[in-house]
Amino acid sequence: MEIAILLFDRFTALDAVGPYEVLSRTPNSKVKFVAKEPGPIRDNIASLELTAEYSLADVNSPEIIVVPGGPGQTAMMDDQYVLDWIRRAHKTSRWTTSVCTGSLILGAAGLLKGLKATSHWLAYDVLRSLGAEPVSERVVIEGKIITAAGVSAGIDMALTLVSRVYGHGPAQAIQLGIEYDPQPPFDSGSPTKARAEIVARLRHQSRFRK
Amino acid sequence: MEIAILLFDRFTALDAVGPYEVLSRTPNSKVKFVAKEPGPIRDNIASLELTAEYSLADVNSPEIIVVPGGPGQTAMMDDQYVLDWIRRAHKTSRWTTSVCTGSLILGAAGLLKGLKATSHWLAYDVLRSLGAEPVSERVVIEGKIITAAGVSAGIDMALTLVSRVYGHGPAQAIQLGIEYDPQPPFDSGSPTKARAEIVARLRHQSRFRK
Repeated sequence: MEIAILLFDRFTALDAVGPYEVLSRTPNSKVKFVAKEPGPIRDNIASLELTAEYSLADVNSPEIIVVPGGPGQTAMMDDQYVLDWIRRAHKTSRWTTSVCTGSLILGAAGLLKGLKATSHWLAYDVLRSLGAEPVSERVVIEGKIITAAGVSAGIDMALTLVSRVYGHGPAQAIQLGIEYDPQPPFDSGSPTKARAEIVARLRHQSRFRK
Repeated sequence: MEIAILLFDRFTALDAVGPYEVLSRTPNSKVKFVAKEPGPIRDNIASLELTAEYSLADVNSPEIIVVPGGPGQTAMMDDQYVLDWIRRAHKTSRWTTSVCTGSLILGAAGLLKGLKATSHWLAYDVLRSLGAEPVSERVVIEGKIITAAGVSAGIDMALTLVSRVYGHGPAQAIQLGIEYDPQPPFDSGSPTKARAEIVARLRHQSRFRK
């Protein structure tokens, strides 16, 4: 099972590494970090550098595609070379997935037209402008496309994907292996749960603000 | 606020990147990935390569230390150069933390003697052999030492740490920013919750098995 995780300048690290940690533990799979050019790729904070060992041209028909988000998603939405790769790879993929604003890149590639999809909660309007129907759910499955909510949702998405591909047992074993028994110290992880002033502040600071 | 995350050959990627994603979003902080020698460091699966931009000698007194786990922890437990660095840095740190089997490295450095601590659920016996009192909790705070359970627990640990250092508001804002409203598809994330045969299989396959 060949799994390609797309990297690009100013990606969000956990968007990529959450699914990586889950998917790389599946049997007989090979996860490949891919980018336009192989080499080190910096994240949105610019303190982290992850190596893309493969160029897009090296990996033409991965069975699973994972597209993370991050501020660099804006540039990717206009990058015809990357969008062409996504469209081509999607034709033969078994699953095409995104985390956070990665769904905006799938949308820009034309993959989400008329489909339910999710994204970071601040990006629903942009997602709608790309022809998708935004859904406030953690993981949204439409045919072979799976979109996940913001950043940390990639872990839940990947476990869901493993259960579809390999069955419940392997997904549960990986969950136990990474001891994913989440106990956040606060209940502040979605705009319906966080304090109103925190939601308002993040909306105000958002790069998606009109 | 200088935050050092230790990297070493065969670390577990999410152990390091979970806390990174949380801690790097705090105001006026700088996260530095450190290793014995700067350069690309491979994870336990060997598909991921993260750059350590700093050597241990470059970063002498970080305010926060994060030690991840992974199979490479065994070599670190015998590496006097690394253990010396941890002991020295711990003298001036505000917080010294670990994720997963990173606590075994703290234990090998002599930092956990007589203290409650946690680790990956498969590593409690080794933790005990290092003089700590293993506790089956997600995040354990003893003075300025915080240990987290396996792999994904680093996210909960880092949010807890942010709430201690910066207050509840900033921690809640970061939780909302990374949309950490976990909804795993199964309830299989701890040995008390997973199916008995899955727990038994992971115990059987464990590298900590006597």
